[in-house]
Amino acid sequence: MHITVAAIQTSPRFGEVTANVEAALAAVPPGCDLAVLPELFSTGYQFRSRDEVRALAEPVPDGPTTTRLLAFAAERGTHVVAGLCERAGERLFNSAVLARPDGRSAVYRKVHLFWDEKDLFDPGDLAFAVHEAAGTRIGMLVCFDWMFPEAARALALAGATVLCHPSNLVLPLGPDAMVTRSIENRVFSVTANRVGREHRARAELSFIGLSQIVAPSGQRLARLGSNEPGVAVARIDLDEAGAPITPRNDVWADRRPEMYGVGGARS
Amino acid sequence: MHITVAAIQTSPRFGEVTANVEAALAAVPPGCDLAVLPELFSTGYQFRSRDEVRALAEPVPDGPTTTRLLAFAAERGTHVVAGLCERAGERLFNSAVLARPDGRSAVYRKVHLFWDEKDLFDPGDLAFAVHEAAGTRIGMLVCFDWMFPEAARALALAGATVLCHPSNLVLPLGPDAMVTRSIENRVFSVTANRVGREHRARAELSFIGLSQIVAPSGQRLARLGSNEPGVAVARIDLDEAGAPITPRNDVWADRRPEMYGVGGARS
Repeated sequence: MHITVAAIQTSPRFGEVTANVEAALAAVPPGCDLAVLPELFSTGYQFRSRDEVRALAEPVPDGPTTTRLLAFAAERGTHVVAGLCERAGERLFNSAVLARPDGRSAVYRKVHLFWDEKDLFDPGDLAFAVHEAAGTRIGMLVCFDWMFPEAARALALAGATVLCHPSNLVLPLGPDAMVTRSIENRVFSVTANRVGREHRARAELSFIGLSQIVAPSGQRLARLGSNEPGVAVARIDLDEAGAPITPRNDVWADRRPEMYGVGGARS
Repeated sequence: MHITVAAIQTSPRFGEVTANVEAALAAVPPGCDLAVLPELFSTGYQFRSRDEVRALAEPVPDGPTTTRLLAFAAERGTHVVAGLCERAGERLFNSAVLARPDGRSAVYRKVHLFWDEKDLFDPGDLAFAVHEAAGTRIGMLVCFDWMFPEAARALALAGATVLCHPSNLVLPLGPDAMVTRSIENRVFSVTANRVGREHRARAELSFIGLSQIVAPSGQRLARLGSNEPGVAVARIDLDEAGAPITPRNDVWADRRPEMYGVGGARS
């Protein structure tokens, strides 16, 4: 089965939530089955304090941004994955939301916080889970989660065929590592990154774009540049997910978890 | 502390063990602290049968090839890691041997067998272990082990700072994935691959070379081409191993193993 997926590369203005949301949704191509938007796509990235996060954070799924994503999904028949600030009681998460055309949503809360995010957000408290979407099973990662092979692995072992990866990448290593994540887990990956700069706190941040869609073979099916907003689109064959790497090498059959323990004999 | 490491890229002739061993050792640069040679460097790769493997396999450390490696290590003060066919009773392994200048050796038996190797070798039965060498701690992987993030991860968690990776790569994906392995585990990696072709069994194999030395930052410190034998050499600063990726992101402190279980709530 084939589906059409898109990575939406945006350039949000900090704090201008309605304008950022509408600009991102306006870029989603018609006929797209699954669209991935960047991390913190509605607010921008560089919060100065936890109070500032709280002021812009929203409950999921009842907040205005998730409500708008669900309405868009229903109207267009497109599944949307997007990163946003989530408020859950006193807790604040750097989350990704899945909005489905049938009105159901799902949320993932970033497990691996990057740099000053540790002052701003609570670490994610939900396991890596897969969700039915666009006729298949997706998993969500947020930005720096790319660094930890266990994250993508947990999603693939749980049955994900497409990793949706909202990002605000500033390091140039992430997009290349996501190629490895696709190969080693036999999954598609869709990284939606932002572009532009922010200088609200002590360091100026420059976001590197390079949004991409990668096949289980490691082939980049679409890739954007570093300077402009844009849309990466690919029609993907879901049957490629999980395909053996050679006629005799199925990575799931070949894994040997009994050998992966730590503490073998040293010499 | 700095040490000098080398990846020796060879072009062995099948079955010409003495010539292959001497050609590889002759290429090790003087003053090198740690030299990595390819997978099955002494025999060549494409065995036709298990009987053919048995005829060329050697016990470790008492066989002639390991004996020669140990003599070379002692004479030159160089630690050598090399891939060879190991015979252990009735069992046959695609192994890597560490030969130290002080006469001690260590062995790793390839855990993840590639394609027709499944007919020729027994799967490795030794845990991923680290070994003192060249003033630091090394871990060994053989070729297709690159595909499984758990392998490099187990070695890094056990304290390896340098991954020694004898290879006979035929897929173009491995060298790029080893960059990811270095980044995600904050380790150096030394991939020694061979070049040339073999057509002894049903398929002609073309080995891709591209031997390389990669820093924990992901930088390629040295890299060879695909067509010729050669030597990649780098002087590496061991203090870079384990260095945090940002001032607030130490990957070992940031790992959250409690979140990596499989079987989170689906939706």
